[in-house]
Amino acid sequence: MREIRVSLGARSYPIVIGAGWLRALGERLREVIGRKAIRAAVVSDSRVAPLYVPTVAGSLREAGFAVSEIQIPEGEQHKNLAWLALVYDRLVESQIERSSPVVAVGGGVVGDLAGFAAATVLRGVPFVQVPTTLLAQVDAAIGGKTGINHAAGKNLIGAFHQPRLVAIDIETLRTLPRREYLAGLAEVVKYGAILDADLFASLERDVEKVLRQDVELLAAVVERCCALKARVVEQDETEGDYRAILNFGHTLGHAIETLTEYRRLLHGEAVAIGMVCAARLSHAVGSLPRAAVDRLEKLLHALGLPTHVPADLKREQIGLAIEADKKAAGGKIKFVCLETIGSTRFEALSATEIARAALP
Amino acid sequence: MREIRVSLGARSYPIVIGAGWLRALGERLREVIGRKAIRAAVVSDSRVAPLYVPTVAGSLREAGFAVSEIQIPEGEQHKNLAWLALVYDRLVESQIERSSPVVAVGGGVVGDLAGFAAATVLRGVPFVQVPTTLLAQVDAAIGGKTGINHAAGKNLIGAFHQPRLVAIDIETLRTLPRREYLAGLAEVVKYGAILDADLFASLERDVEKVLRQDVELLAAVVERCCALKARVVEQDETEGDYRAILNFGHTLGHAIETLTEYRRLLHGEAVAIGMVCAARLSHAVGSLPRAAVDRLEKLLHALGLPTHVPADLKREQIGLAIEADKKAAGGKIKFVCLETIGSTRFEALSATEIARAALP
Repeated sequence: MREIRVSLGARSYPIVIGAGWLRALGERLREVIGRKAIRAAVVSDSRVAPLYVPTVAGSLREAGFAVSEIQIPEGEQHKNLAWLALVYDRLVESQIERSSPVVAVGGGVVGDLAGFAAATVLRGVPFVQVPTTLLAQVDAAIGGKTGINHAAGKNLIGAFHQPRLVAIDIETLRTLPRREYLAGLAEVVKYGAILDADLFASLERDVEKVLRQDVELLAAVVERCCALKARVVEQDETEGDYRAILNFGHTLGHAIETLTEYRRLLHGEAVAIGMVCAARLSHAVGSLPRAAVDRLEKLLHALGLPTHVPADLKREQIGLAIEADKKAAGGKIKFVCLETIGSTRFEALSATEIARAALP
Repeated sequence: MREIRVSLGARSYPIVIGAGWLRALGERLREVIGRKAIRAAVVSDSRVAPLYVPTVAGSLREAGFAVSEIQIPEGEQHKNLAWLALVYDRLVESQIERSSPVVAVGGGVVGDLAGFAAATVLRGVPFVQVPTTLLAQVDAAIGGKTGINHAAGKNLIGAFHQPRLVAIDIETLRTLPRREYLAGLAEVVKYGAILDADLFASLERDVEKVLRQDVELLAAVVERCCALKARVVEQDETEGDYRAILNFGHTLGHAIETLTEYRRLLHGEAVAIGMVCAARLSHAVGSLPRAAVDRLEKLLHALGLPTHVPADLKREQIGLAIEADKKAAGGKIKFVCLETIGSTRFEALSATEIARAALP
């Protein structure tokens, strides 16, 4: 078992990483929140619930919790106010108390929505993340961002609510669809690119092990990513400024996701394309060597990720989508550039400049 | 102008109290949040909007804000998820940014709902309270409790989100219905009873001035109550323990409100009755002299407030309502007793004991 501590004063918490340990979750949770709570709620979605809720809920019951199980349908389109209302109803029906933990079992959608419910029911109850996708394990589950989408945009409604425990079981990745696993690797590559040249080099070296999900390697990689994210969150809990480095590749990634209506590409796939474009731009306006751009593109490609903007998208469209996303009509955008593999710099660029570099 | 500071580290804020100063609000707000924000949203209800939104919105526009006006219908029954969704829609439509203040103009319902919207849109934007009822001025607007009701109970969904500024204009009380003004006085009496024997004595002395809303006296009384509430909130921001002293009179008050279905009595009226019962109980189980119980009852009566449990309510009903409210089937409830006028003590009592003392 590997353990990382996110140090945020009174809101500090452990990230526990292991393989096949979910049946011990209840016990670990008792260590974190004490013996007072008598109820707990497990929130999951229709894909993940049959796979892991029996184990998680069983473990909580063994640890003395009366457990309610709450399910939402799978998919980003359900991360909205209507399904939040259903989760509120179920939490209230189950007579949740201020000490009762809400446990999210699933990917980013479940974690975000259940986390927001936990942040706001009874003005905040303890929250536990059990991320079962690679993306959630290395990113979404850590750092306290919770929320739901609004018709006008993603994550427009939400709260910062740090979990009390993040419980990562690497074995859950075995049931993750292959394409989602690969998409999650894009965020792993991102941590290497922005913060950790050693991690980046180890991914290049171990592409084959990564692709066959070698458990030892994967646990080490997930641990490294969690540690990097923890350090960023510790320095800037509520995204004042520094935390924005995590958006490397995301400005263009979001624009591409929007223009393809979130249907053609997974988030990680769009981020992979966005990172290559951002690296190219970092070379054009800054110090990043051409060779580093090539290394990034080659690694992503080797991991089965797309690296080119879909052929039907026009440069003008992308510029407009970036402007709309960043509410930056005519103004400058704080864009995350690579300085080298492993370090970043913010550059003030216009949407037009960004789009031009993306589709040269 | 009188000013009190609520000291909560990075979340500290001023409470500004004056008469007829709303037209200077925009300027004061700029001093607090700086010049960066270009948009602001004013949330009000159908009763208060025609009275004060023109002044408030005008003052904000003069201070350089592009102002959106958002209205909900008057009444506690609209403090729910459906109207929150409408407020979210309007805030998003108005292209609110992370720096844009949401300004609540009205009583507790508007402040709670708008405050919760401000706490959660874009994961939290600056919030300003402009309370226009006595109850909101001395209680609801201070301390950061925000939220909405759920079908199963009041304030079950919410967040702690401290305002950046509380702007109290005593003159707004002139348009408050008489009965609501008197109900607000119950909370004023409460502050004297639990924390401040001098305030209590001054209310006894100045009943006549209080009843005719003498502006000087009222400003001093509101200031005193705000200062007392500020000190309580500073010691216990998220209601861990101590802040519960503010619930004096509320255990029985809530039970009476529930049993009369929130129709027959205003909140302050139910609290007035609850306080007299709680004082009687404090005499029975503790050190409170009989004379102090009489003083409390006499003062509330002089202020036009009810002091007797409605004749049709049965002791058993009240006991059950308290148990349900406190989720304390068979267990003990932490009940706020008076030790003297001006000081409190928690007593562990059963719902049956409380109900028996309420209706002896």
